[in-house]
Amino acid sequence: MNFEYSNRSLELQAKLNAFIEEHIVPVEAAFYAFQQNPENLWKRWPKTEELKQKAKEAGLWNLFLPKEYGNLSPGLTNLEYAPLAEIMGKRIWISEIFNCSAPDTGNMEVLAKYGTEAQKQEWLQPLMNGDIRSAFLMTEPEVASSDATNIETSIVLDGDEYVINGRKWWSSGGMDSHCKVAIVMGKTNPEAHRHQQQSMILVPMNTPGLEIVRPLSVLGFYDSPEGHAEIQLNNVRVPKENLILGEGRGFEIAQGRLGPGRIHHCMRLVGMAQYALELMSQRTLERETFGKKFYEYSSIRQDIAQSQCEIEQARLLTLSAADKMDKQGNKEAKDLIAMIKIVAPNMALKVIDRAIQILGGKGVGPDTQLAHYYAIARMLRLADGPDEVHMYQLGKSLIRKYGKA
Amino acid sequence: MNFEYSNRSLELQAKLNAFIEEHIVPVEAAFYAFQQNPENLWKRWPKTEELKQKAKEAGLWNLFLPKEYGNLSPGLTNLEYAPLAEIMGKRIWISEIFNCSAPDTGNMEVLAKYGTEAQKQEWLQPLMNGDIRSAFLMTEPEVASSDATNIETSIVLDGDEYVINGRKWWSSGGMDSHCKVAIVMGKTNPEAHRHQQQSMILVPMNTPGLEIVRPLSVLGFYDSPEGHAEIQLNNVRVPKENLILGEGRGFEIAQGRLGPGRIHHCMRLVGMAQYALELMSQRTLERETFGKKFYEYSSIRQDIAQSQCEIEQARLLTLSAADKMDKQGNKEAKDLIAMIKIVAPNMALKVIDRAIQILGGKGVGPDTQLAHYYAIARMLRLADGPDEVHMYQLGKSLIRKYGKA
Amino acid sequence: MNFEYSNRSLELQAKLNAFIEEHIVPVEAAFYAFQQNPENLWKRWPKTEELKQKAKEAGLWNLFLPKEYGNLSPGLTNLEYAPLAEIMGKRIWISEIFNCSAPDTGNMEVLAKYGTEAQKQEWLQPLMNGDIRSAFLMTEPEVASSDATNIETSIVLDGDEYVINGRKWWSSGGMDSHCKVAIVMGKTNPEAHRHQQQSMILVPMNTPGLEIVRPLSVLGFYDSPEGHAEIQLNNVRVPKENLILGEGRGFEIAQGRLGPGRIHHCMRLVGMAQYALELMSQRTLERETFGKKFYEYSSIRQDIAQSQCEIEQARLLTLSAADKMDKQGNKEAKDLIAMIKIVAPNMALKVIDRAIQILGGKGVGPDTQLAHYYAIARMLRLADGPDEVHMYQLGKSLIRKYGKA
Amino acid sequence: MNFEYSNRSLELQAKLNAFIEEHIVPVEAAFYAFQQNPENLWKRWPKTEELKQKAKEAGLWNLFLPKEYGNLSPGLTNLEYAPLAEIMGKRIWISEIFNCSAPDTGNMEVLAKYGTEAQKQEWLQPLMNGDIRSAFLMTEPEVASSDATNIETSIVLDGDEYVINGRKWWSSGGMDSHCKVAIVMGKTNPEAHRHQQQSMILVPMNTPGLEIVRPLSVLGFYDSPEGHAEIQLNNVRVPKENLILGEGRGFEIAQGRLGPGRIHHCMRLVGMAQYALELMSQRTLERETFGKKFYEYSSIRQDIAQSQCEIEQARLLTLSAADKMDKQGNKEAKDLIAMIKIVAPNMALKVIDRAIQILGGKGVGPDTQLAHYYAIARMLRLADGPDEVHMYQLGKSLIRKYGKA
Repeated sequence: MNFEYSNRSLELQAKLNAFIEEHIVPVEAAFYAFQQNPENLWKRWPKTEELKQKAKEAGLWNLFLPKEYGNLSPGLTNLEYAPLAEIMGKRIWISEIFNCSAPDTGNMEVLAKYGTEAQKQEWLQPLMNGDIRSAFLMTEPEVASSDATNIETSIVLDGDEYVINGRKWWSSGGMDSHCKVAIVMGKTNPEAHRHQQQSMILVPMNTPGLEIVRPLSVLGFYDSPEGHAEIQLNNVRVPKENLILGEGRGFEIAQGRLGPGRIHHCMRLVGMAQYALELMSQRTLERETFGKKFYEYSSIRQDIAQSQCEIEQARLLTLSAADKMDKQGNKEAKDLIAMIKIVAPNMALKVIDRAIQILGGKGVGPDTQLAHYYAIARMLRLADGPDEVHMYQLGKSLIRKYGKA
Repeated sequence: MNFEYSNRSLELQAKLNAFIEEHIVPVEAAFYAFQQNPENLWKRWPKTEELKQKAKEAGLWNLFLPKEYGNLSPGLTNLEYAPLAEIMGKRIWISEIFNCSAPDTGNMEVLAKYGTEAQKQEWLQPLMNGDIRSAFLMTEPEVASSDATNIETSIVLDGDEYVINGRKWWSSGGMDSHCKVAIVMGKTNPEAHRHQQQSMILVPMNTPGLEIVRPLSVLGFYDSPEGHAEIQLNNVRVPKENLILGEGRGFEIAQGRLGPGRIHHCMRLVGMAQYALELMSQRTLERETFGKKFYEYSSIRQDIAQSQCEIEQARLLTLSAADKMDKQGNKEAKDLIAMIKIVAPNMALKVIDRAIQILGGKGVGPDTQLAHYYAIARMLRLADGPDEVHMYQLGKSLIRKYGKA
Repeated sequence: MNFEYSNRSLELQAKLNAFIEEHIVPVEAAFYAFQQNPENLWKRWPKTEELKQKAKEAGLWNLFLPKEYGNLSPGLTNLEYAPLAEIMGKRIWISEIFNCSAPDTGNMEVLAKYGTEAQKQEWLQPLMNGDIRSAFLMTEPEVASSDATNIETSIVLDGDEYVINGRKWWSSGGMDSHCKVAIVMGKTNPEAHRHQQQSMILVPMNTPGLEIVRPLSVLGFYDSPEGHAEIQLNNVRVPKENLILGEGRGFEIAQGRLGPGRIHHCMRLVGMAQYALELMSQRTLERETFGKKFYEYSSIRQDIAQSQCEIEQARLLTLSAADKMDKQGNKEAKDLIAMIKIVAPNMALKVIDRAIQILGGKGVGPDTQLAHYYAIARMLRLADGPDEVHMYQLGKSLIRKYGKA
Repeated sequence: MNFEYSNRSLELQAKLNAFIEEHIVPVEAAFYAFQQNPENLWKRWPKTEELKQKAKEAGLWNLFLPKEYGNLSPGLTNLEYAPLAEIMGKRIWISEIFNCSAPDTGNMEVLAKYGTEAQKQEWLQPLMNGDIRSAFLMTEPEVASSDATNIETSIVLDGDEYVINGRKWWSSGGMDSHCKVAIVMGKTNPEAHRHQQQSMILVPMNTPGLEIVRPLSVLGFYDSPEGHAEIQLNNVRVPKENLILGEGRGFEIAQGRLGPGRIHHCMRLVGMAQYALELMSQRTLERETFGKKFYEYSSIRQDIAQSQCEIEQARLLTLSAADKMDKQGNKEAKDLIAMIKIVAPNMALKVIDRAIQILGGKGVGPDTQLAHYYAIARMLRLADGPDEVHMYQLGKSLIRKYGKA
């Protein structure tokens, strides 16, 4: 056991923090003003590309992709990436600046892991370059998608093409004008065993028949410019070479994709909670009621102390899961990933909620990121599997482990 | 003790429900579509006035105003009004249809109770008619307004006019194009005892110097068309007759105003929670995961059972507080009002949160009112006094009561 | 709706309080000293019978039994009895003084409702007189008894006698030297429909074959002198006339028995929580840390305010359930009884836990009743059906009610 | 970062587990039977000394004492000791077998760190040998002892002796017949700065004037044979050489003593919670209600999954605090120790409570250690500083750290 960050990790943290101090802090107010203006809905912020270029030059680019995929990235371990993702989580919009934002990260890892050379050439390369963005089309409005075997979109081979029909929603990233390709999950083999019916396939966003129905708000937030789209697929035709890995492998890819994706979310959630903790700590020095400064109230100190206890525990659990993924692989780390996926969003919600309460009107309104982060954290109790599904599987696994004395 | 609604109450509930069935249900989808379209931000829905006219004709108008103010209203007791407000809470936008929406209700009660004849003529009458709307300007961005003695806006007599300077925010209703008048709280007597420094004054919204700075979002929602405004007051001049009740009486009016206002919110919150309970109950019959319908899962039944336990308790506490207000007055009911103000928003948040989780993507997104009600309930842990202030006062009062054995 | 106690109820409350002030308060320290001395384990306090006599003379006797059973009792409604049970709950040992203690109350009601004349003569009369006590033998160590159809004790007719074999535990009251009779639940008809297999039968405690195996502690408390017994039944033979109501009616009796029993527990739990609230309020005036009296700490005021909110809500829910039982019968009140059975023990645990924390060493130790009441409340999350079973049934019932919009 | 136990730690864990399997498991039923029999109150179990001897021979002795005190112990780091303490926590009574039980461990560390040679000779040696036991007399019934400066016992120099007067309670270990010495905290310098008034002094238990008033129960448990004593000190005279470290150094010693003591408790609490998790997991395979095995219920799986999440987080936080103590010292680790002291007892209470509920009557009663561990964990929300005091200090420290942006 050793609870200190490695030197490499500390160096990268310092470098990332310095970049933020130099390039992000001076412009972040401008970004938030742009983003909150209803007139800019679905527009990209003009300065984004410039900042991406600077990050790339600084070597702070594609940090998320583990070294097993060769020299496409700095090749960090999950454990090394975790504190960097946490730092990005404190200003979640900057994940894109470092080409580390969902759902692109998950999609890039899928392509890096399972893609053909042609698929890599066409889609992975521009994604790794930050030239385009992508979407992931899994969830459907008509079924409980938390059980992935429920997915009903059909993918039928017709000559040299697959024909796709179905309705998707919560397709994160789908509203972005830079979004050029989607990975779509659907059924190629409806008669196979329930874990072998699904496949994943690449669909360019401009394919005829793919229609964006509407953007969806999350607790009131549209998350522009990426957004969450509802998408209709009517006889969408793509070459059969667009299939990833093979027919009936969709469930397997989904499992592989979600491990790192889930833990990245958790790392960022720790960052969001840390942001909330710092904000509320600061507020206690500024405000006063009934003749006392906020920091004198024992109840406020309890809010802060409790928050730190919860944050630090979730941080350690995230790091521990990352370490296990690095050393024993995603499959062995399954239970730990489920644990952190249950813990982190709930932890963040509690901490952010306390910060909102201490900041009062400023907390519930648009002048901090608290309300937005609250919405993100709430979404993450559902996205990538609701708490209940993770607890159902984890409980089963634990009973198998401990149930025989 | 008798836990059944009176006949009069049951009749009014039936009448209100029938009105909703006949006039609201057929158009509510159209209303929500209008409201959610970003293009309609700050526009009023065209059908609103027509529905108000129908409600007036049906005698479902101004239900909130107690009988002590003569024949301005049907003259219901708080206890009789409670279940009606609960019904309105299930579709909170319809409160305006029955001229029962905040902050107008509180403002009308202030004018009915403390207004001069001229003030009543000019402002109470059109408000009671539903011809105009109003705002209440108390909270300020620069101080912890939960301690009302912190309010810093200055109101200075200058000849026959008061001159008002200050910054307000969370001025609910202030964005509505029908909003014609504001009640403003500020200091006329900065040297007096801290509970006698504040006054309330009527300010027409079109008075020079009153500038709407921006609308504020609540957890991402703008609550159009009423909205929550940030407002700058720069040398705003109004006739000295606009002062309500007298200099230094502002704190006293605030106390009187907030009792009924708080309990109305609580009644509506019970309705919102009930809406959430019904929605999640229905969902359990529709969805299925891992080979089981949702209603078969014991954890989902627990969510529903717990929700009902919490709703029913909060409902009884609300009714009990209303009954005490009716029989012994707002002052005697102070502790019970504090209790329900603490209980109801937290209860609603818990219940709505469970419903969001059970509905999944549909719950967190725009297709139900859950996300919006969540934001409203969250706001109400702060509005009209944060939980912490109510607990601080209630705790003190209870220690005085029970502390000597 | 009317949230004030009736005059009759207020009079009885005053009378009961006066009795306690005059006869109980002067001796309670002596009682607790006797009870806590390990040497007195399973001995009855010498003064008990004298106090029972006084209560009988004061007309404060058998208050629990509703009027439908004729002139065996004062004939109070459940709603009238509730505040009296709450008062007794504040000193739970005095329930016996007024012949209102479990499990006797439930057993008496069973006999009053379903007993033959001979059964009433032999057992109901001495129980109503307070001459003997009784036990209720339902729960078994070998099966999950929360599903009553699991009960496995066999009751087999052999000539004119029933022969009983089985193992029971948590037979409350079974350790008391005054305990003379048990109502035993077991299977007479193992082949019948699962709700018609069980019967109830009267078994004198001195019947050969009935052996007390050991007393069981509840979170460390033995609850002397009543206790909770583990009991072995080996070929226990009783006359066939001892069967109550008829073969296969046991489940039905259990359902009928548990309604009032559950609500009596809840009333007393409200009293225990109220006791805890008063104790912690007093403590805040006595103690000081870091230069501040306890009552000045906002966190302590929150504990007290929250406790009052929870107590008052549970009290109203209990009263509401009692009112529904009175007006519409136990069956119609089923959901409300389930709700209060879920709510009251959990509420009491939270409140008592806060009091323990505020009282510190005094709270966790033997110098108040807090630790004991904590154990009782914890037991009551299991006794008469665990929370989970009530939520499972209540959730099902609510889905049926609200699930079709 | 490295989340795997070191080889040395893994070896010791294996050795300890093997010892338990060989020597403890075969006799533990006998131990519990002895302990629960009221007739054995305050008697020591005859086999204890024999087991201690075996543990000593196996080198599993005095594991708690860090290496900085020379060759008195195996010299483990806190991080190495943690998993061993966790294993002992699963059967908490065996801590004594390995001479690792509170309050002796803390007392030994005080003597090792601050004792004179003579003090070490007389008291530390027999304690390290396991020949005697000890008590720690700090808490007082008349003041809020959570603020140590409140302690009022007086220690007055009179010639060559100190004369001690005061009342102590919660003197853990004080009832044990092997308890030969107490460390007593009291005021030598009532006029000094509040952190320099207190001293610590060694008092043989048989000193005239030291009277054991009574044993105190913790939530109903006496914790025989150690117990928790209330002790009267009337003109207790000891040689002035019995003072530890010097006059006015008591507060400083207390701070130093409590760091390791607190974390040892936390390690054991993790073990108790793990015991509860294993017990409830096993139970889910055995029991059945309403046609389903317990493990099929989603709510039960949630209980188990949540418990594991909480245990693993607390375990990591404990290890992280231990690591910081090892590397940077107790003072630098102050905030982390406060965090784990807040987290661990509350975590254990939640987990044990779920296990009690799932085990039902078996859980609340004497047939498992759950009820006892519940009482211990509850006590530890108060002992060594109540949650509220730790949060008050931790909150202050965090505001200082994060409060200036």
